Amino acid sequence: MVADLSGTISHSVWYGWGDPSRARPLNAGGLAFLRRRLKLASVEPVHPPVDLSDVRLRPGSLGADALDQFSAIVGAEHVSTSAQERILHAGGKSTSDLIRRRSGDAGDAPDAVIFPGSGTDVRQILALCDQEGIAVVPFGGGTSVVGGVEPLKADFRAVIALDLGRMDRVVEVDSICLTATFEAGIRGPAMEASLGKLGFTLGHFPQSYEEASLGGYLSTRSAGQASTGYGRSDDMVKALHVETPRGPLELGGLAPATAAGPNLLDVFVGSEGTFGVITEATMRIHRAPKHRSYGAWTFGSFEAGAEALRRLVQDGAKGDMPEVCRLADAPETESTFALSGGWKSSLLRMYLRFRGQGSPALALFVWEGADNQTDARRRRCATILRRAGGVFVGPVPAQAWERARFSGPYLRDELLTRGVYVETVETATSWNRVKSTHRDVGKAIGSALMVNGAGAHVQAHISHVYPDGASLYFTFLGGLEADPLAQNARVKKAASDAVMQSRATITHHHAIGVDHAPYLAAEIGEVGVDILAGIKGVLDPRGIMNPGKLIPGPKTPQIPG
Amino acid sequence: MVADLSGTISHSVWYGWGDPSRARPLNAGGLAFLRRRLKLASVEPVHPPVDLSDVRLRPGSLGADALDQFSAIVGAEHVSTSAQERILHAGGKSTSDLIRRRSGDAGDAPDAVIFPGSGTDVRQILALCDQEGIAVVPFGGGTSVVGGVEPLKADFRAVIALDLGRMDRVVEVDSICLTATFEAGIRGPAMEASLGKLGFTLGHFPQSYEEASLGGYLSTRSAGQASTGYGRSDDMVKALHVETPRGPLELGGLAPATAAGPNLLDVFVGSEGTFGVITEATMRIHRAPKHRSYGAWTFGSFEAGAEALRRLVQDGAKGDMPEVCRLADAPETESTFALSGGWKSSLLRMYLRFRGQGSPALALFVWEGADNQTDARRRRCATILRRAGGVFVGPVPAQAWERARFSGPYLRDELLTRGVYVETVETATSWNRVKSTHRDVGKAIGSALMVNGAGAHVQAHISHVYPDGASLYFTFLGGLEADPLAQNARVKKAASDAVMQSRATITHHHAIGVDHAPYLAAEIGEVGVDILAGIKGVLDPRGIMNPGKLIPGPKTPQIPG
Repeated sequence: MVADLSGTISHSVWYGWGDPSRARPLNAGGLAFLRRRLKLASVEPVHPPVDLSDVRLRPGSLGADALDQFSAIVGAEHVSTSAQERILHAGGKSTSDLIRRRSGDAGDAPDAVIFPGSGTDVRQILALCDQEGIAVVPFGGGTSVVGGVEPLKADFRAVIALDLGRMDRVVEVDSICLTATFEAGIRGPAMEASLGKLGFTLGHFPQSYEEASLGGYLSTRSAGQASTGYGRSDDMVKALHVETPRGPLELGGLAPATAAGPNLLDVFVGSEGTFGVITEATMRIHRAPKHRSYGAWTFGSFEAGAEALRRLVQDGAKGDMPEVCRLADAPETESTFALSGGWKSSLLRMYLRFRGQGSPALALFVWEGADNQTDARRRRCATILRRAGGVFVGPVPAQAWERARFSGPYLRDELLTRGVYVETVETATSWNRVKSTHRDVGKAIGSALMVNGAGAHVQAHISHVYPDGASLYFTFLGGLEADPLAQNARVKKAASDAVMQSRATITHHHAIGVDHAPYLAAEIGEVGVDILAGIKGVLDPRGIMNPGKLIPGPKTPQIPG
Repeated sequence: MVADLSGTISHSVWYGWGDPSRARPLNAGGLAFLRRRLKLASVEPVHPPVDLSDVRLRPGSLGADALDQFSAIVGAEHVSTSAQERILHAGGKSTSDLIRRRSGDAGDAPDAVIFPGSGTDVRQILALCDQEGIAVVPFGGGTSVVGGVEPLKADFRAVIALDLGRMDRVVEVDSICLTATFEAGIRGPAMEASLGKLGFTLGHFPQSYEEASLGGYLSTRSAGQASTGYGRSDDMVKALHVETPRGPLELGGLAPATAAGPNLLDVFVGSEGTFGVITEATMRIHRAPKHRSYGAWTFGSFEAGAEALRRLVQDGAKGDMPEVCRLADAPETESTFALSGGWKSSLLRMYLRFRGQGSPALALFVWEGADNQTDARRRRCATILRRAGGVFVGPVPAQAWERARFSGPYLRDELLTRGVYVETVETATSWNRVKSTHRDVGKAIGSALMVNGAGAHVQAHISHVYPDGASLYFTFLGGLEADPLAQNARVKKAASDAVMQSRATITHHHAIGVDHAPYLAAEIGEVGVDILAGIKGVLDPRGIMNPGKLIPGPKTPQIPG
């Protein structure tokens, strides 16, 4: 019943997400729903990516001398200038990344890909690049959707991708302190496998779980689908080893908590490789769950459901909160039913209409635990949800969600092939602004999509719940326009502007990268940006580390405006 | 039964702690225990502080012109150069502060004390001081025990204490988001009073609760006695307004969590006024507890008790942990019994000896909750504690501790008057080093005290428990030597060196201040110190903000070595 946590993908396909053999194609009902909703003449799969051999690549700008120097550090077999490696490291997995790559454009590929085997390798590579004026893009799973691994050369001589894939060792699992130390290149499934054998779990399951790396989790301050229960990556991290051009740092290893000045762990978590490279991390771990309880409730509206989640997290007993806690708005609930199809959802819809919920909002919960309390916790939460107007619809929707929890991004590849534009934007805000942010951002996205009578579908869900607020994750679809990059820039700008207008954060778990850099000053102020620039000045005075990311500046491409 | 949370002290007595009328003097049994244990000929109260009129003060170095400029900002009635105000702001409440002050030495008093009424006042004062080269020491409750409010003039023209006492307003209590916004000068009791009326609590109860300010809590990354349940100040803070010489910052107000880069809240929490002044903070609040359950257990040794606490926090259900969770070692248990005295503790001791615990270690717990689950939570925890060897000794010791929870520091004033040296050192470390740190630091303190056959008493407790480790708080007593400042420096150095040798943090909740600054590089590395200096360079380029604190440097007095 539980999702497969062992599936790992060492290298995504170059033009899209993960391993295409894992994709679950849309069925006829789903296709009909899309055609109708998006007012499209056809959703036939007639827009495939070009052949790999047709991808355009600029010539590499690193000569044999420079490559020899890298080889002297890591070994020649761990230095690559092959077209395939360069294309695989030409960027992340944002919709605009995919649109460019599918059309054969990998002009922004790095000049070389270097695979260090240790922290010492990383230190020597950074020293070499600092001396030679070569930009360095740390690369974990490569799943950034905000341009975080874009190989921007800026005004440097060359740019390399520093692929940490070889640095995937389990350094230590400490069952006395409930912590585990890993090299930063390790992927989620490998961590879960090593911990699972000893009866533990990290409990971090972002949608990118099968590909993303621990270093990536931390560099982007990522949250996972079970963060409501296990906490975010920034809650989980206890200690870091970081390599910077200025030298190495060991942070946080002495104690579970300290008052020894500002928390420098929190300076590196979320720093997106702009200060240095996280090479090792010690994470808090949990006893692996032996019991799981599932439940789904529907509400008359998103607003009613959001109010129920607020009650749950604020009024429920501390330990009763579900590990997974999600609420889809009415359009997302509708598309979930439509895309999953079948007579069961039709029956469910009839039942809910009978209960007065014509456009229901579906909430899903999973309670996990090493003890046998998950059913009791579910029962106590059920009382709160029922009082808040929830109709219990059984465990199946939550179980179905869990089985498909990592499959969402595959759909995007199929949609692009069928001429359908799809993108996501996420944020978080305080409870008193959740409803208005949901409404205003959704409206802004819809308006930006529905130009010249075009159709659009805009849906959203809450996937992370806090005592003081919640996340909001928008997914939106339309017909691909003639200039899809311009379309994407226009819609994302409308969405991001509306997010800031709503006094919500520009990103809850996707990070800043290139795409959100123009909004950072609105988030933390000009003085806040100066602080980040000041830290970078200390650690990376020449600016070789992941230029153009996080900190807005002349080297950062501006979004069209 | 519950401790009085309404007692507030706006101004501590100049030579010691709080309001002396609240002190509970030692009884005959306690005095006998001390005389015997410390091998003292007498503990008569023959070493009182000098008269206030005999305190030596250097002449103020601010002329009428400068004072007029401050008066133009805050009003003449909020600018003071009186001897009494200067002495009240001449430092914090460390043992060495008290030794100096009691002997009549306030040579380090600030040139003036300024009382701003708003964030705008603070902004203008910082601009004026930056322009005029005047050092600024932000001053909340003034309870620092690490030299955090020492008015070091460094090479500036003058130094002022910026007393935030007037900035004590409740800005907003948001019952939808469960947050409350306060001006930073507000004290704990005032926060609890305003929240209590609305059915909420902040849940932050450091021993300095009756005097310390919110700004002080956050500037020092403080923890409270109930932090095991409610979290530390750094967990509680959601948003900050900060004034710096470079300009104001608004941080964290947009969302409950964000991936928008490094967490700058965590740069200011713990910054000890060296980057700027926290003028306003939004804190997460909780429903006020309606139910409380108490329990005390004894263990055969500190080691057995620590192991039981580890089991409790790692194996118990998430919501079952007590809000307050403390474990005294055998010497602290012994002194608690001895100083509280009476036939009840004699009976208890006989019973424990019968149960095989000749030198018991006493653990105290308080479960608090807005729901009626506290008894059930206690019962489930009791199972774990019993299995770990704990003997239940009823609720009374926990209730007695709670009633006296804020009275500890008063004892120091009486002890100094009786010629007894007393000091504390606190740290935290991972579970796998808790026992060795307890042993080695205790031993180092004892050796440093017991020179030339002198007696000493060294005790310790755990007061904060985390899944990955715990705090350790050492209290130690001896006869006051002829040069008590040298004695204090010697013993604190031995303790601090042993803490670092044990791979524990130099401070769990007392902060860095002046006293711990020489150890910061050992804690966060030279590169880490450079980061802090870099941030200071951005926000306070002239270095006027609380010079000599936190960041070690030429302006920081070195401990004797």
